[in-house]
Amino acid sequence: MPDRERIEARLHALWRIASGPGGGADRPALSSAEAGAMRLVAGWAAQAGLSAGLDRFGNLWALPPPDGADQGPIVTAGSHVDTVPDGGRYDGALGTVLGLELAAELPGCGVMICAAEEAPRFGAGTIGSRLLTGSLAVSDLAGLHDATGVSASDALAAFLNELSDLPRIDPPLARWRAHAEIHVAQRWDLRTVGIVTRVAAPRRYETVIRGRAGHCGEVSMADRRDALAAAAELVLAVEAAARGESAETVATVGALTVSPGAVSVIPGEVRLKIDARAIDAASLDRLSAAVATAAAHIGTAREVSVELTLLRDGFPVAMDARLIDGALAEAERLGVVAQRTWSGAGHDAQHLTALAPALLLFVPLHDGESHTPAEGADMDEILAATSIAAGVLGARLG
Amino acid sequence: MPDRERIEARLHALWRIASGPGGGADRPALSSAEAGAMRLVAGWAAQAGLSAGLDRFGNLWALPPPDGADQGPIVTAGSHVDTVPDGGRYDGALGTVLGLELAAELPGCGVMICAAEEAPRFGAGTIGSRLLTGSLAVSDLAGLHDATGVSASDALAAFLNELSDLPRIDPPLARWRAHAEIHVAQRWDLRTVGIVTRVAAPRRYETVIRGRAGHCGEVSMADRRDALAAAAELVLAVEAAARGESAETVATVGALTVSPGAVSVIPGEVRLKIDARAIDAASLDRLSAAVATAAAHIGTAREVSVELTLLRDGFPVAMDARLIDGALAEAERLGVVAQRTWSGAGHDAQHLTALAPALLLFVPLHDGESHTPAEGADMDEILAATSIAAGVLGARLG
Repeated sequence: MPDRERIEARLHALWRIASGPGGGADRPALSSAEAGAMRLVAGWAAQAGLSAGLDRFGNLWALPPPDGADQGPIVTAGSHVDTVPDGGRYDGALGTVLGLELAAELPGCGVMICAAEEAPRFGAGTIGSRLLTGSLAVSDLAGLHDATGVSASDALAAFLNELSDLPRIDPPLARWRAHAEIHVAQRWDLRTVGIVTRVAAPRRYETVIRGRAGHCGEVSMADRRDALAAAAELVLAVEAAARGESAETVATVGALTVSPGAVSVIPGEVRLKIDARAIDAASLDRLSAAVATAAAHIGTAREVSVELTLLRDGFPVAMDARLIDGALAEAERLGVVAQRTWSGAGHDAQHLTALAPALLLFVPLHDGESHTPAEGADMDEILAATSIAAGVLGARLG
Repeated sequence: MPDRERIEARLHALWRIASGPGGGADRPALSSAEAGAMRLVAGWAAQAGLSAGLDRFGNLWALPPPDGADQGPIVTAGSHVDTVPDGGRYDGALGTVLGLELAAELPGCGVMICAAEEAPRFGAGTIGSRLLTGSLAVSDLAGLHDATGVSASDALAAFLNELSDLPRIDPPLARWRAHAEIHVAQRWDLRTVGIVTRVAAPRRYETVIRGRAGHCGEVSMADRRDALAAAAELVLAVEAAARGESAETVATVGALTVSPGAVSVIPGEVRLKIDARAIDAASLDRLSAAVATAAAHIGTAREVSVELTLLRDGFPVAMDARLIDGALAEAERLGVVAQRTWSGAGHDAQHLTALAPALLLFVPLHDGESHTPAEGADMDEILAATSIAAGVLGARLG
C-alpha cells in the first residue's frame, strides 16, 4: 500500500535540495540539483531492493533484480526530477515518488525517471525521453544553449560525470511492457483524477512584420506603415482563430518586441512568436491556415511585409488506448472518480509510449497553480491515481 | 545675398565635427560635439562682426555690435546644432547657417542658437529654449539622465565649462523684436516652403495592462486574461481614434513590452506608451477621451486591469499671426511658392515665441528622410525660405 507519510517526506526531501526565492523547487535541467535528486531517488530505490543505473541520456532506471536467469517482462513508473525556476513541489516530483511506491507494491515494476523534462534552461523540454526514443538526436544537443552559453551536450556530459558513481546501463527496452506517469494537472478545470487520452503538441511560428519607422508627429495616419498596428491585428486574429475551434485548441502570442521601441517613433519592425496547440490535427491545421490567411491579409491591407516562419512543427499524440481503457475500468472497480482528459503541455509519457505503451494520469490541482511555489495536490486523489496505475501496470505483468 | 557655396561649406563643416556609423551627423545634446559646433558658429559670427556669447542655459547669442550707446531693437535667426544619433546634415544645422546668412545681410539681425534641442540623449528636447522661457526649470535638469547615468544638469555644467572661452551674457530680451527659425521639413507631403501656423504638442500616456499569466497549453481561450490581446485592442483603438480626426491629428503606440515574454506563457502584463498629437486642442481632447473610453471598455470586457497614466500633457502652440501674414505677403512679393502648414514635431521657435514673436519656416524634404543620414533639401528652396525670413525680420526692425 502506498504510504502517505513516506510520500510527503520524499516530496519534502526533493524540495529541500534547492529552492528558489519564492520557496519553490528549483532544480534546473541537467544541473547539480537535478543530479542530486537523481541520486536521492537511486538511494530510495536501493532501499526497496531495486538496482539503479543511468542510461547514456541521463535517464534513471531502477529495476527489479533479475529472478535468477529470468529476464521476464518489466513495467516502470516515474516522472522527472528537474523543475522550472522556483517551480512547484509536485511537478515531476510527485510522479517520481509515486513510481517508488508502485515499485514497492508491485513485483516486476521498476522506476524510470527521465532527465531534463523542463524547457526553461535550454528552451527545449523532454530531452531525456526524446533522446531515448530517438526523436531528438544526441547531435542536436550541441545546438541548445542555456543563458550562460553552456550547451546541453556539455551539461549532459557534466551531469553523467557527476553521477559516475551510479552504474551505466542499457535500457531494457525489449522487456519493457508498460510505463505509467502520474503528474499534477496544470489546468484548474480538471477536478477529478484525469486519464490522458491525447497530448497536444505545439506548433510554433516566428513572425517578423516590417513596416516603416517614422516621426510620430510627422507622418499622417494615412501614410503610416505601422508594424505594431499590423501586429495587433495579427495577435487578435490568432486569438479569434483559436476561439473558433474547440476548447482543447489554443493559440498564444507570448513574446513580442517592437523596434525601435521609442515613444516618439512609429514602430518599423515587430517580431512575435506564436504557439498553437491542439489535440486534433485537423483543428491545428485549420488554425494554422487561418493565421496564415490573416497574416497575408494584414500584409496586403497595411502594405507591410509579414513573414511567418515555422519554428517547430508538432503533431498531437494519442496515448495507448488499451491502457486508457484499463485505467477507466480500474477506476470503476476501485470506486474512484476519474475521467478522460487531454494534456495541453508536453510530458515524457507521450514520447515513451513510442517504446512501451504508456499511461499518463493527472492528479487535480488542489491549491495554487502549476509551475509556481504554491502548487498543491490532495493526498486522497494522489493515492487514488496510484491505485489506478497499480492496477493497469499489474495487468501488463500478468 | 545668401551665399550658396558658403551655406554648403558650413553645413559640411558642421557635419564633419562628428558623424555616426551611417555617415549621418552625430552631435548629442550637451556633448563635446555640440560644444564644438557652437564654437564653430561663434567663430563664423565673429567673422561677420557679431559678438558671440552664451547665456547661462547654453544658448548661443551672436549679436550686432551696439551702435555707440544705442541699445536699439534686434532680431535673431537660428536653430540648433545638436542632432539625433546618426542624424541628418540639415536638421538644425540648416537654420543655423541660414541664421548667419541673415545676420550678414540684415543690420540689426543676430544669430541665436538653442542648446540641446533633440530629445534622444535625455529623453527631453528643446531644453535650451525651454530653460530660457522658464517653461523648464533649471532644477528639473537633475532629474533627466542619459543612458550612462549623467544628469542633464551635470552635462550642462560641463558644456558651459567646455565653452568657458566664450563670454557669458544676459539674453537681450527687452530689445528682442523677433526670431526666425528655418528648419528642414519632417513630413514628405510638404512640397513647397512652409509657413508654420501651429505646432502640435504631444500628450503622452503610459499604460499598464495586467492580466493573468499562465501555461499557453493549459488555459483554454475562454479562461484567459491575456494582457497582450487586450493591448492589441488598445493599439488598434488608438489608431482608430486618430484616424477619426483630421490629418493633423495623430496617435502612436511606439513602445510596448510584454511580461514574462516567453513563447510558452500567456502574457500577464503589458506596458505601452501612447503619444497623441494635434494642432487643435479640441481634437486632442476628443482623441484622449476616445482612448480612455476604449481602455475602460477593454478592461471590463476582458477582465484585465488597464491603467492609463498621463506622463506629460501638451497643448498646441499658435505661432505669431503677424509674422505668418508677413511671411505669406513676402513670399507673394518675391514670387516664391509657399503655403501655411503645421508642425507635428516640436521646435525651439514654438517656445521662443513666448519671449519674442517667432517665425518657423520649413524647407521641403528633398531627399531621404528627416533624422536620417540621407536627409536632403534643395538649395533653391533653401534660398527662397531665407529671403522670406529676411523680409519678415527686416520689417520688425524698420
